[in-house]
Amino acid sequence: MANETITAPEGFLAAGLGCGIKVSGKTDLGLLVCPSGATGAAVFTTNRITSAAVQVCREHVRSRKVYAVAVNSGNANACTGKRGLANAVKMCGAAAQHVGAKIEQVLVASTGIIGEQMPVQKAVDGIEAAAGRLSDSPKAGLDFAKAIMTTDTKPKQAVRQLRISGRDVTIAGAVKGAGMIGPNMATTLLFLTTDAAITKPLLKAALKDAVGNSLNKLTVDGHQSTNDTAILLASALAGHRPITSRCPRYRTFAGALLDLCTDLARQMALDAEGATRMFKVVVQGAATKTEATRAARAVADYPLVKCAVHGGDPNWGRIICAVGSAGVKLDPAKLSCKLDNLYVFRNGSPAKFDEKKATRIVSQREHTITVNLGAGRASDFCYGCDLTAEYVHINAEYHT
Amino acid sequence: MANETITAPEGFLAAGLGCGIKVSGKTDLGLLVCPSGATGAAVFTTNRITSAAVQVCREHVRSRKVYAVAVNSGNANACTGKRGLANAVKMCGAAAQHVGAKIEQVLVASTGIIGEQMPVQKAVDGIEAAAGRLSDSPKAGLDFAKAIMTTDTKPKQAVRQLRISGRDVTIAGAVKGAGMIGPNMATTLLFLTTDAAITKPLLKAALKDAVGNSLNKLTVDGHQSTNDTAILLASALAGHRPITSRCPRYRTFAGALLDLCTDLARQMALDAEGATRMFKVVVQGAATKTEATRAARAVADYPLVKCAVHGGDPNWGRIICAVGSAGVKLDPAKLSCKLDNLYVFRNGSPAKFDEKKATRIVSQREHTITVNLGAGRASDFCYGCDLTAEYVHINAEYHT
Repeated sequence: MANETITAPEGFLAAGLGCGIKVSGKTDLGLLVCPSGATGAAVFTTNRITSAAVQVCREHVRSRKVYAVAVNSGNANACTGKRGLANAVKMCGAAAQHVGAKIEQVLVASTGIIGEQMPVQKAVDGIEAAAGRLSDSPKAGLDFAKAIMTTDTKPKQAVRQLRISGRDVTIAGAVKGAGMIGPNMATTLLFLTTDAAITKPLLKAALKDAVGNSLNKLTVDGHQSTNDTAILLASALAGHRPITSRCPRYRTFAGALLDLCTDLARQMALDAEGATRMFKVVVQGAATKTEATRAARAVADYPLVKCAVHGGDPNWGRIICAVGSAGVKLDPAKLSCKLDNLYVFRNGSPAKFDEKKATRIVSQREHTITVNLGAGRASDFCYGCDLTAEYVHINAEYHT
Repeated sequence: MANETITAPEGFLAAGLGCGIKVSGKTDLGLLVCPSGATGAAVFTTNRITSAAVQVCREHVRSRKVYAVAVNSGNANACTGKRGLANAVKMCGAAAQHVGAKIEQVLVASTGIIGEQMPVQKAVDGIEAAAGRLSDSPKAGLDFAKAIMTTDTKPKQAVRQLRISGRDVTIAGAVKGAGMIGPNMATTLLFLTTDAAITKPLLKAALKDAVGNSLNKLTVDGHQSTNDTAILLASALAGHRPITSRCPRYRTFAGALLDLCTDLARQMALDAEGATRMFKVVVQGAATKTEATRAARAVADYPLVKCAVHGGDPNWGRIICAVGSAGVKLDPAKLSCKLDNLYVFRNGSPAKFDEKKATRIVSQREHTITVNLGAGRASDFCYGCDLTAEYVHINAEYHT
């Protein structure tokens, strides 16, 4: 079986197991290790309140080499004060001890309930147990992907193969995300591994661009969590000449990374809490890119649009209403809207269209809404998903 | 039976009936008439896309005297181009003919599906029929309140009595609102009548203030419709000396108007689509009032908070997450949160509290969430309601 997990690139070992943080006993502790030391980069939530894990990880990722990442689900270690901070450091310490690294060479990430102290002894014991099971097998990678799940219904992973300077290079990723996903950091938790050789600043740049044009374009309920973290580790073991500038080899790497992250973002949208469909919103003809972004997000976040998509209803009036409410410049006489390639509203007036065809388009697993504001030349896009009764059930019952 | 409808103030007649715009045959056409001519004021949606009715009403309300308001539900007459504009004028014309006024002395409002042409002959015939049934009876007022309903489960009305210069003065209102209600114009459709005597500029000022501090504080799904309209008509028949300045009599009038509008806003929140509970969000300690408003709205609009309220779950972590995500200045070390009077988070750390008591608070029909940002002295508030599976059912099935 081909390895399609984060252990696919050369130089990475992983493990995942249940250590009892989740009362259900499900897998909740993951460990990712690069024994040779990896170049690391990370991007984090822009929420003003950040989890203890984010605060610690933000410091540790500055280390020249990263040897391990410890991650847990079931407890976010957010809003937990100084004790939470100490617990996040303890988790790094446990992993550092087992892989022979310094504490600041270990990253940490958490997801789950906010405001409860981490049962840190369980986490430390779990890290110790995971260290004993580290492997580069596909199963180990899958166990890690399972360890980061909360309300996700399935592990989400992807792999890309590319050639750089005649050598095979692999990039792999595992992501979790369900609710609480908003643009500007739509990750929740994303872990990427690669055996490419690339400098730290370029690794950071590639990660920022890839996340910015994929996961950050995804909105499930319009908010950013306190814990959103994306980590990219590069082992440099693929054996090619290191990427040290924005040369064609960098662009090959960055392109593959974006493609991988887009794949993961689509998996996230289709596995968002209760979601059954996803859609892309493209806004063209905006006065500025910022306004294009804002208008696209207004459509994708609008509960009435999300409900209409759920119902397979080509209710374009709600799309126009959302755009009008976004506070962006538009020309009412030029405003147009398409569902896939079907015009439903053109130059400020309803278009004549085949309603059955429109219903078929909106009832697909994925479709594209294109809005032209008629106010300029800027454009942007985002991804959204439908709003379902299941979303409400999940979030009314998920317990504190 | 005391008259608690918009025909309660002296000088107003109303009617409501079904004219066939709604395929269900339900009441969908309302007519409100002030035979002696009323001073009129109105505020409208800030959506960049406005309905034909809003465009026409915005012009007509400039008239010195208003004699009638024609209103329909079942069709929003929005995104309907020039033909829609002509239809809105035709509706005014039909009412003007029957009450002996000029077209521009008649206001018009519509609510319902966006993007379909108004079946204008039905509306015109309905206005004619309504003109034959005009009455100042409570039943006529109730029929008018029913004529503006869409997914509302019940008519929403309120009346206030006050004394000005030794005379009895009455203010009454009917409102419709369900989904698509966002701050800055949370009305959908609001009709207010009074027999107070007050100048047009002061009437407008009182309306703007009252709506700004009541209906505009309400958010159901965070968006403004293309049709939101609030109209206040004053017949001046109460016989008191006219209010011509911001004197104590003005403040008495404005205070009663705000109290009335707050009552209507609460009725709207509790009758929002699928809603079973409402809550008030108070933000204190903000750097600016704008930031207080933004933070309050971020909490009230956050689907995860709305779901937690639905589940009766004191999930304060989601409140803190929403505040952190609002992009406002805050001091993480001073940030505090109360549910009614119970601290759940204090000075940046979880508070010890009685969980059963917290659950009881959140399970009430109404409760208050208070957040202190610890960043300044400004404050503001808003009203929200829970998010339920019923909201999704209503909006996935409401058909184009």
